[in-house]
Amino acid sequence: MANCTNHVTFVAFKKNTSKRMSPVDYIKDNKQKFLDELFSLLRIPSVSADPKYKDDVFKTADFVKNSLVQAGVDKAEICPTAGYPIVYGEKMIDPSLPTVLVYGHYDVQPADPLELWDSPPFEPVIKNDKIYARGACDDKGQMYMHVKAFETMMKTNTLTCNVKFMIEGEEEVGSENLEIFVKANKKKLEADIILISDTSMISLDTPSITVGLRGLSYLQVEVTGPDRDLHSGVYGGAVGNPINELCKMIASLKDEKNRITIPGFYDKVLDLTNEERKALNDAPFDLDEYKKDLKIAAVSGEDGYTTLERAGIRPTLDVNGIWGGYIGEGAKTVLPSKASAKISMRLVPNQVSDEISELFTKHFESLAPDTVKVKVIPHHGGEPAVTPTDSVAYAAASDAFVEAWGKAPIPTRDGGSIPIVSLFKDELGLDTVLMGFGLDSDAIHSPNEHYGIHNYMKGIETITLFYKHYANRSK
Amino acid sequence: MANCTNHVTFVAFKKNTSKRMSPVDYIKDNKQKFLDELFSLLRIPSVSADPKYKDDVFKTADFVKNSLVQAGVDKAEICPTAGYPIVYGEKMIDPSLPTVLVYGHYDVQPADPLELWDSPPFEPVIKNDKIYARGACDDKGQMYMHVKAFETMMKTNTLTCNVKFMIEGEEEVGSENLEIFVKANKKKLEADIILISDTSMISLDTPSITVGLRGLSYLQVEVTGPDRDLHSGVYGGAVGNPINELCKMIASLKDEKNRITIPGFYDKVLDLTNEERKALNDAPFDLDEYKKDLKIAAVSGEDGYTTLERAGIRPTLDVNGIWGGYIGEGAKTVLPSKASAKISMRLVPNQVSDEISELFTKHFESLAPDTVKVKVIPHHGGEPAVTPTDSVAYAAASDAFVEAWGKAPIPTRDGGSIPIVSLFKDELGLDTVLMGFGLDSDAIHSPNEHYGIHNYMKGIETITLFYKHYANRSK
Repeated sequence: MANCTNHVTFVAFKKNTSKRMSPVDYIKDNKQKFLDELFSLLRIPSVSADPKYKDDVFKTADFVKNSLVQAGVDKAEICPTAGYPIVYGEKMIDPSLPTVLVYGHYDVQPADPLELWDSPPFEPVIKNDKIYARGACDDKGQMYMHVKAFETMMKTNTLTCNVKFMIEGEEEVGSENLEIFVKANKKKLEADIILISDTSMISLDTPSITVGLRGLSYLQVEVTGPDRDLHSGVYGGAVGNPINELCKMIASLKDEKNRITIPGFYDKVLDLTNEERKALNDAPFDLDEYKKDLKIAAVSGEDGYTTLERAGIRPTLDVNGIWGGYIGEGAKTVLPSKASAKISMRLVPNQVSDEISELFTKHFESLAPDTVKVKVIPHHGGEPAVTPTDSVAYAAASDAFVEAWGKAPIPTRDGGSIPIVSLFKDELGLDTVLMGFGLDSDAIHSPNEHYGIHNYMKGIETITLFYKHYANRSK
Repeated sequence: MANCTNHVTFVAFKKNTSKRMSPVDYIKDNKQKFLDELFSLLRIPSVSADPKYKDDVFKTADFVKNSLVQAGVDKAEICPTAGYPIVYGEKMIDPSLPTVLVYGHYDVQPADPLELWDSPPFEPVIKNDKIYARGACDDKGQMYMHVKAFETMMKTNTLTCNVKFMIEGEEEVGSENLEIFVKANKKKLEADIILISDTSMISLDTPSITVGLRGLSYLQVEVTGPDRDLHSGVYGGAVGNPINELCKMIASLKDEKNRITIPGFYDKVLDLTNEERKALNDAPFDLDEYKKDLKIAAVSGEDGYTTLERAGIRPTLDVNGIWGGYIGEGAKTVLPSKASAKISMRLVPNQVSDEISELFTKHFESLAPDTVKVKVIPHHGGEPAVTPTDSVAYAAASDAFVEAWGKAPIPTRDGGSIPIVSLFKDELGLDTVLMGFGLDSDAIHSPNEHYGIHNYMKGIETITLFYKHYANRSK
């Protein structure tokens, strides 16, 4: 466990001195190669949630390790864990220079519902200058930009920092083994800053850097009524129906103002100041466009907050899946024995995932009438995080965006969760720069996930510029 | 449609004069044959709700027709419909004698959830003197008793009435084509009484005859939020979640007294008199046994009514199936585009199925917030029915039970639905005798459906006795 003696590879790096190409030119010259390699990576269905893809997830780890080797690391390792391995790589050029620890993940979300994909999720295609595939953006596409940015700096002799890579295969299922790995390898992971691309920017015209992330509590509930499915005519009306009861329990989790009713849920929520809320709401946002994009007539959320606030700085509760009874074709008059749901809550500073999971469990169990039995099983969680905007690294990232995109990035609060950001802070004492190049419209976690070729290529360039400015500002 | 020229078979019946055996002896002597034949019938998976069993459903119709021929009918036909065929057979011995029209169905409920069966649903086995298979009781077992009772009377020269058989293949999906058939074949179906075994008796110690049946309205609802599955981190809290909304809508369909909240729902419900309620509650019923059998801590239902009343004379609303979002292994943080449910209501006199479906649809649509779109699709329905207890046929059925079981049967109101009972009354002017031999514990519509061998054999005997007493009392 967290033992990296397995599959250790040392690579003697040969300097490319044949010509002194600029990073921008190298990236331009290698566009097709960068795309081909990403396509090969996207073709491996590394769905960490589904055991049937086990071999593919391991295969993907090998692919990432080999990519690091080919890009020029000194050391590349497959570090086994109790689950899927962590790929570690490093290039130490000078101990006096700053060290950047790159984090990313090679696992992807399940692809279903498959029937809603316009092309097979693991056969990447390009349409309208976008790459369509599961993981195109989240996070294979964004993670691989770092490998290619590193290759670019190596081949053009422009690497200005030491680099470490830590690429995991369990981000989509809770990163449990990463936590163990980080705690056991603090020395190995020593660095000055953590750099992650697993978030989105406001738009192609408005670059942004994520400075806040929500945490997560994910649980599964099971409601059991009678010990077997019953005929709804013979027993209907006289025996508690677990689907009806589950619906009632779920419905009661929010009040008429869309506030979550779990006692104590909001106790630790850190409210933003009016200034902070104003700054947040100053970001370009078009509600009509938002509704049009999702084909909805109205948005919905907690009373008293804007859409940007609801999606960024307020905690949520969503049912992610529900099932029970007869769900086939036609009609079956059954009063089922069981009904289940997957329920997750996004958390904000200073909520604590384990505490919220416990509050949920206690409350949900208390909601059950005596006609049914309830089981609550925690899946996984993660802590919310806020990253500083007054650091050298943030300034360097801002410089990089200005140079590559012609505009200073706007700091934003994202609704998604990258639980390891708070883990890195707690265990390694390191801040993170969240330099994301996705767009909210990329349909990550959805059918037809895609990633703009422009975002991919421009992202590689921006990352090389981060290293340049980070080294300069660190002098 | 409803045109029976296809597959008409005329059979010359040879009288069995070799010996004058009594019906009881014939039944005893042929026990193994009667079981073997039923097993062959049970092996054909005639699931009418699922198109993948189409060929098997047709095959089952052939099986039933051949069984009638072998039992001794003069005429047996496969009558095609727009869906599955109706098997018709008749034996007219004397126009001056009363004619019994036997109704039954050869289709069965879907077998899933398959994993909860202890033995494969379409491979019948005997355990503890019970036959385990889908359809063992509902209705292949109970329907086939009539074929074997008829055979017994033919072989023992004891048939005292004319007999007509009408065995359909769409009872579990709404009997739509039967209605068309009945309307088009009133002459052919002329009779004095309809006899059906598709209900249950109170217990082996307490025979009963069903005199009331509930009706049914079955609908499917679909709630759509955004036009695609979304990342619950990026959009959660800001976009209406169709699962949460569906749960809220379903929860609101009943109030805190478990009364259905659809406006107008109870308007036409015929309340029973205090005497009728008292008689109903006088039936032997052990609430503790009932709860123990279902492994539930408490029953649940409309305030102010007993369990027998809730299951027999009060209308209900049950969710029969629900699905939406990610329902695979592990966790997926999705805010889904759609959520669906199958919802059915059991109706009592004088509620009308189409009216209730319309009230439901109107109300359900009105519940939807403007963040989602709602589609309501009616599946099928049927009318409630009450059959008379002061008729010659009821008295004959009572006589038959007294002779076979040693006890007069108790008239009961069943919670299930056999919609065609009211159709027969309206279209053919005929009353029905519901002579059921199942037990509520037979797990019809559930995994491990079974039927007691004793019920099967004793039922065949009781049916032959019905013919004897009915002819006598009709003189």
